[in-house]
Amino acid sequence: MQIPLSSNLAELVQFPGSEENIYVGGRDKFSHLPKAFEGIKQIGFIGWGSQAPAQAQNLRDSLQAAGSDIKVAVGLRENSSSREEARQCGFKEQDGTLDEIYNVITASDFVILLISDGAQARLYTRMLASMKPGATLGLSHGFLLGVMQNDGASFRDDINVILMAPKGMGPSVRRLYVQGKEVNGAGINSSIAVHQDATGRAADIAVGWAVGVGSPFAFATTLESEFKSDIYGERCILLGGVHGIVEGLFRRYVRQGMSEEEAFKQSVECITGPISKIISRDGIDGVYKAIPEQDKETFTRAYCASFQPCLDICQEIYDDVASGNEIKSVVQAVTRFDQFPMGKIDQTHMWQVGKRVRAERVEKDIPLNPFTAGVYVANMMATIEVLRRAGHPYSEICNESIIEAVDSLNPYMHARGVAFMVDNCSYTARLGSRKWAPRFDYILDQQAYVALDQNLDLNQEYLQQFLSDPVHKALATCAQMRPPIDISVGGDNSTEGVGAGGARTSYSSSAATTS
Amino acid sequence: MQIPLSSNLAELVQFPGSEENIYVGGRDKFSHLPKAFEGIKQIGFIGWGSQAPAQAQNLRDSLQAAGSDIKVAVGLRENSSSREEARQCGFKEQDGTLDEIYNVITASDFVILLISDGAQARLYTRMLASMKPGATLGLSHGFLLGVMQNDGASFRDDINVILMAPKGMGPSVRRLYVQGKEVNGAGINSSIAVHQDATGRAADIAVGWAVGVGSPFAFATTLESEFKSDIYGERCILLGGVHGIVEGLFRRYVRQGMSEEEAFKQSVECITGPISKIISRDGIDGVYKAIPEQDKETFTRAYCASFQPCLDICQEIYDDVASGNEIKSVVQAVTRFDQFPMGKIDQTHMWQVGKRVRAERVEKDIPLNPFTAGVYVANMMATIEVLRRAGHPYSEICNESIIEAVDSLNPYMHARGVAFMVDNCSYTARLGSRKWAPRFDYILDQQAYVALDQNLDLNQEYLQQFLSDPVHKALATCAQMRPPIDISVGGDNSTEGVGAGGARTSYSSSAATTS
Repeated sequence: MQIPLSSNLAELVQFPGSEENIYVGGRDKFSHLPKAFEGIKQIGFIGWGSQAPAQAQNLRDSLQAAGSDIKVAVGLRENSSSREEARQCGFKEQDGTLDEIYNVITASDFVILLISDGAQARLYTRMLASMKPGATLGLSHGFLLGVMQNDGASFRDDINVILMAPKGMGPSVRRLYVQGKEVNGAGINSSIAVHQDATGRAADIAVGWAVGVGSPFAFATTLESEFKSDIYGERCILLGGVHGIVEGLFRRYVRQGMSEEEAFKQSVECITGPISKIISRDGIDGVYKAIPEQDKETFTRAYCASFQPCLDICQEIYDDVASGNEIKSVVQAVTRFDQFPMGKIDQTHMWQVGKRVRAERVEKDIPLNPFTAGVYVANMMATIEVLRRAGHPYSEICNESIIEAVDSLNPYMHARGVAFMVDNCSYTARLGSRKWAPRFDYILDQQAYVALDQNLDLNQEYLQQFLSDPVHKALATCAQMRPPIDISVGGDNSTEGVGAGGARTSYSSSAATTS
Repeated sequence: MQIPLSSNLAELVQFPGSEENIYVGGRDKFSHLPKAFEGIKQIGFIGWGSQAPAQAQNLRDSLQAAGSDIKVAVGLRENSSSREEARQCGFKEQDGTLDEIYNVITASDFVILLISDGAQARLYTRMLASMKPGATLGLSHGFLLGVMQNDGASFRDDINVILMAPKGMGPSVRRLYVQGKEVNGAGINSSIAVHQDATGRAADIAVGWAVGVGSPFAFATTLESEFKSDIYGERCILLGGVHGIVEGLFRRYVRQGMSEEEAFKQSVECITGPISKIISRDGIDGVYKAIPEQDKETFTRAYCASFQPCLDICQEIYDDVASGNEIKSVVQAVTRFDQFPMGKIDQTHMWQVGKRVRAERVEKDIPLNPFTAGVYVANMMATIEVLRRAGHPYSEICNESIIEAVDSLNPYMHARGVAFMVDNCSYTARLGSRKWAPRFDYILDQQAYVALDQNLDLNQEYLQQFLSDPVHKALATCAQMRPPIDISVGGDNSTEGVGAGGARTSYSSSAATTS
């Protein structure tokens, strides 16, 4: 369903080959929130994971700024260990802004379901049944639709079903909103969708939700397009792809004779530092331009050898996501957590080296390694190519393949290593990263690097296709919509940018200081 | 459906805690074949992959030995590149023993469908519809049942549906049958099942098929139990597990200071040589006994650290197989072959080292590394544990977790390296091995080896559970049923034991010499 243009909050943007509806947010739009949420007396956030602490605080603050008396409440289990953190963020049992899950659901006119994907799969039947007729269900991920498709179930038809999916993890949604108090328009972009409009108010509520959590821009999509691109993207270049790449490159560089510290710099540091910054500022093709003439051949060979193997794994991931397989696997994995909790991924030798390297980092000395750049950019372009073939809009492609990587996730890996990045995401993302990172690692080792080492003929056309790819123009369009400041994340002993929420319990929460 | 005991061909064997029906084969049973196949004038083998060349030749030779005039024909596409190889094995267009696929299906009373799993998924509707009423469909893998379950389809009710699944790849089925001409009872064991009995003759035909291809023993199972344990087993210790283990161990030993040649010996050579031989001869607990006292602590620590991480991945694999996910992924992967052919996996640095090591191998000098043994045995026990929890019979557990590894697959890896072992299996197995090997590698690195290197507390109970596990008695029972001679496979420049068939086109076929 297409979201109708709303006079105050919409803008039509031309992407190469397509027109997309983009909604413009910002603090100067907060005054429209009471009208967008007309008829809503209580908004209930269910859960306290990555997104809920950020969204609940942002929306509460925005409504307050707009002079609205809509109550923002958080629903948690009676014995939830997150209750104390929610209290520290200002949600309290005494005034009814912190209550038991089903109490909040039945009392809210707008229920925003932010429990983990696995819990949604287990609990959705009862939760949907508990909602008021005419209420609005808000999702930040289309995952539940995928689960219900697998189950052959559908939403009850007397409620609105909408999506607002921030293009970044929860902590950054809160972090940039807070920073945005000083810099208007700082915030995380989002995509929004109306899946079911029972009351005729669904579109306004979706746009209001996006504006209220601080999205400078919101892109129109559908639940199905969102869950496919999101689950796919985090398995590719966003998390799984980048992790697999750096594991393999580190090993390769060490075997070629580099010290371990140097190999870490030339692989991880290079990607999370200069490459991410260049892409964020100048686009993907900016990386090629930034590489000195004498190194361009190295980039080109690495790119041309890596593109097809990466595309192979990316296509497999997309097919597994689109068929419902990946969602089914996640739901199954969650049922095994009691017996098999997700182990740490950053205690291996390589990431211990990384900790030492980060401690002595001199930012400006981090190298731009042309081989690393070629492999990384090839994986990013492969991630893009599969989404494009499947018909996703460019705003979604740019966000799920590029912007979330360089502006949201890689800065976390830069600050604290791979586990910190991965574990700041949802269970679905973390499981997917564990599953697919090794696949990228192996296929690059078995195919790309073998082709290079054996001096096999490479398909040089891949480079020309890369340089003339229309995605660069699309990304430039998106770049005009990016927040005016970068996210800042503290180093190994800091809580800056960490945020609150259950997914990050192994790191010091900064709930008390950022709320 | 339980297969009824047949007086001439059956024996009841006591496994620990369960009674299983075991059928006894051997050349001295060939004379019963005409009675078992009563009413069958033509047996048609469809396809020419790993199993068909072996089974078609074996069954033809056995029927000839029994003085039967049942015709054994092979069905291939008009333009199939395998036709020439089939001709070299004695199947000819002139006498109707080599014909177009659907001609053979419609003319046969017993149709043995041995095309690849992916092709079965695509073609089964037309193939089933082409069969005579009252004919028998033979499968060597329950995969098709899994596909049909995913599709919501079922077999037409006027045909028999049976299974005879050799517990080894095609080339070894032929190889041991040929060797068995000199040593009675040499051959590959199989499992058999009657899924649907339309004529009352299905059980006899299934037992006759097993005897005819040379199985010394045949174990009763069901199609569902077979496809789950088979697809699962090859993803675990049989292929994926062992590959992932040796990749990780090789890296680890090199980083600890071994030369690459030494690291290859202490990982791959150790598993495919002495460990496999000990398990084959003395059981899994034989490995522990064979390790010198002063090394037992190293084995124990490696075992206790590795068991739970291996169990984690094994359980994930089983759940993905049982849910139909893995079958759906295979069917999808096959549709991508045109664009993404399966690449080689043995051109990486490590396997090039392996080639050099094999060339200079002195068999008796191959070390029994206690650390390698601990990790490998832990993976094997984890593979077993998940099957047992899911209720599979011990004959199936022993075959799919132990015997196929040490008596069939590892000898191939010993002779030629990992790709030769993996690529001698079905597409389903090869895809699964590529998918899961890296997962075992990563989880061992991230959890088991980290626990050892950080000197974390290990659960020592795992060792006691291992030593007292009832599987050792079950395996001893199975060992009494193993062929009296080992399989022999030629080295890097030999065709011995390679066999004919499409899956091995990158190696010299020995069709002309073994037929």
